[in-house]
Amino acid sequence: MELVRSPLAPAGFPDVRVPAGVDLFTGRAGAGYHGRDNLLLALFDPATAVAGVLTESKCPSAPVAWCAKHLGAGRARALIVNAGNANAFTGRRGAEAVERVAATIAAAAGCPAGEVMAASTGVIGEPLDPEPIAGQIGALMASPAVGLEAAARAIGTTDTYPKGAGATVLVDGQPVAIAGIAKGSGMIAPQMATMLAFVFTDLAVSAPVLQSILGEKIAGSFNAITVDGDTSTSDTCLVFATGKAAPAPLTSRDDPRLPVFAEALGTVLFELAMQVVRDGEGARKFITVAVSGAESDRSAEIVAKSVANSPLVKTALAGEDANWGRIVMAVGKAGEAADRDRLSITFGDILVAADGAKAPGYAEAEGAAYMKNAELSIGVDLGIGDGAFTAYTCDLGHGYVTINADYRS
Amino acid sequence: MELVRSPLAPAGFPDVRVPAGVDLFTGRAGAGYHGRDNLLLALFDPATAVAGVLTESKCPSAPVAWCAKHLGAGRARALIVNAGNANAFTGRRGAEAVERVAATIAAAAGCPAGEVMAASTGVIGEPLDPEPIAGQIGALMASPAVGLEAAARAIGTTDTYPKGAGATVLVDGQPVAIAGIAKGSGMIAPQMATMLAFVFTDLAVSAPVLQSILGEKIAGSFNAITVDGDTSTSDTCLVFATGKAAPAPLTSRDDPRLPVFAEALGTVLFELAMQVVRDGEGARKFITVAVSGAESDRSAEIVAKSVANSPLVKTALAGEDANWGRIVMAVGKAGEAADRDRLSITFGDILVAADGAKAPGYAEAEGAAYMKNAELSIGVDLGIGDGAFTAYTCDLGHGYVTINADYRS
Repeated sequence: MELVRSPLAPAGFPDVRVPAGVDLFTGRAGAGYHGRDNLLLALFDPATAVAGVLTESKCPSAPVAWCAKHLGAGRARALIVNAGNANAFTGRRGAEAVERVAATIAAAAGCPAGEVMAASTGVIGEPLDPEPIAGQIGALMASPAVGLEAAARAIGTTDTYPKGAGATVLVDGQPVAIAGIAKGSGMIAPQMATMLAFVFTDLAVSAPVLQSILGEKIAGSFNAITVDGDTSTSDTCLVFATGKAAPAPLTSRDDPRLPVFAEALGTVLFELAMQVVRDGEGARKFITVAVSGAESDRSAEIVAKSVANSPLVKTALAGEDANWGRIVMAVGKAGEAADRDRLSITFGDILVAADGAKAPGYAEAEGAAYMKNAELSIGVDLGIGDGAFTAYTCDLGHGYVTINADYRS
Repeated sequence: MELVRSPLAPAGFPDVRVPAGVDLFTGRAGAGYHGRDNLLLALFDPATAVAGVLTESKCPSAPVAWCAKHLGAGRARALIVNAGNANAFTGRRGAEAVERVAATIAAAAGCPAGEVMAASTGVIGEPLDPEPIAGQIGALMASPAVGLEAAARAIGTTDTYPKGAGATVLVDGQPVAIAGIAKGSGMIAPQMATMLAFVFTDLAVSAPVLQSILGEKIAGSFNAITVDGDTSTSDTCLVFATGKAAPAPLTSRDDPRLPVFAEALGTVLFELAMQVVRDGEGARKFITVAVSGAESDRSAEIVAKSVANSPLVKTALAGEDANWGRIVMAVGKAGEAADRDRLSITFGDILVAADGAKAPGYAEAEGAAYMKNAELSIGVDLGIGDGAFTAYTCDLGHGYVTINADYRS
């Protein structure tokens, strides 16, 4: 299947350098995507700490189960990712495949197998043969290291463009690099991390502090996006901190240097998450759903995601139909505290509905003209409290159906 | 928009007579659907009891709010339904429109306004002008009564065929008639009643007993179906019992005559619900999702609906792709107790996956051939308990997008 670059894609891949202490190598795994690299190996400095958020699916993939087992130790020397086969629902053989690959990398890198993180993405239910991967680890490590864009390309599946983001911040007056890559364009929903996202920094950060920052920053980034409400078996977001930058280690939440780093990491996660939404399968509209005035932030999140996941809302937006009635429907079905007569809805700056009815000054033609934009902002104020949440999604058009009706064909 | 009859539609409208004590009249409401009847008035015998289940949406339509207020009294002399305008999110004016129409009918029928039930379906957020409806009540009541099929047609919106079902059962050896109509093909999801469904019987049944039977029978019928997971602001299911049949009234849950009537009513509700799924917008596949082995029936229901509502599952089925990995995904994301290694999946009689991996004897070609059927049965056994639930849905194809991207245009 020919994939056309999403019209919502950024102009190009950002100019981001790979942080010190990280070496990236790409190659070809046996399964899927013949004709392009679909295997990523990252090697890390021995001091590297890792933090991660994994899918909450009750049927996680074999590499997710592997990471769940080993993330707690907070140490990583390598990361291996293959695209094309998710190694999910592959039974005992799937777990053995991860063990086999991790052991091979561990032997080559001189570390325990548990310090090799793993992720797989692609078709579910097909056994993953580990030998083509394990057999080339030595050659991969001897090959020239690649840049961030090549690494981002190697982990993609139905992605129409490689996703990357980076930042440089000053900590103790010295530069610290953060660089991340992500993949994903379908089977993307909140309640967990995301598809796959890997972020690298050369700052020294202890694993518990890194985990804490990640947990805090994922809420407004990867956990705020949804393409189709479908939660993957494989979703994985890992952050690696090599400690090769000059500043002294961040080992406490109370460290006054923490906010600037956390903010920069959050920005990188947010940018990656937005790039994933902008590559939503078949997407032609980038949609922000900002809910305010809810009983609580959690309630606002449920309402925002009810709107962002509604097939009727998403198809209306695909059709550039200013059908705000469907937004009322989606608010109503969320089951959260709401009072029809206090609800107001905006499209961009246009007040569409207020006080339980169409806004007096609202003209349909105004809404219809707004819907022509590629970037749409839907505001919902529930008028009953201070809770707020913003979700990000895309429209549901024929492209989504086309891609998903024959993804495996 | 031209609507082509769903390929999953029944051969024709069933031959069902209108139960004694019910008179049906159709006409044209001002809003929407010019060129065909879109207004239904039903008049009932003075002894008629009513029971109902209404949408659980937090933003219910004005007629739903009206019914919620008056259903408790359990008495109905009339029902008025208009198609084309949902009278939802229309503020105070919407409530006044219902009051105006109900008062007009009540005056003509000689009953309190609270004994006039009302329902509206169509576009949300447009004020409903009550005058074209109120102004023709007298003429409607003087017009010839119509049959069930004409009534079913008058309440349709994007429906591609009229929906009806009926049964005759013997109670005390004497015939009792049950007849029902329904409409709906989008914005259909569980957690409430359905789109619109109205069932009439000439048996005398007290309102509390009728409500109890309805509550019990709706669970496996209208509450087991989903087209897109979107819950309408207007969903209404009302059952009217006129008491014109010969048998003595059913006034107790313990009446030994209750089961046969309840069973027949349940069958009519089930047939109507299946007709709604078969008219799912753009549907080309009728899909049964039977979950067993769950921790509880409620847990099985959540898993079944997670599968039945998953856009990735539904688009795969539209594409006749035997992509059982997406079923694993949908089971996993449901968040209910599940053990990947005890999960098994069947397509019809074909064992596809078992023990946490693809079933040893399963051949992809077999699954692909099965997917060509218009009626598909997906079985999921969680292998951990006795809970079971069956949900009914349809595929999500280009037809759904086409219909919903330009429904209002």
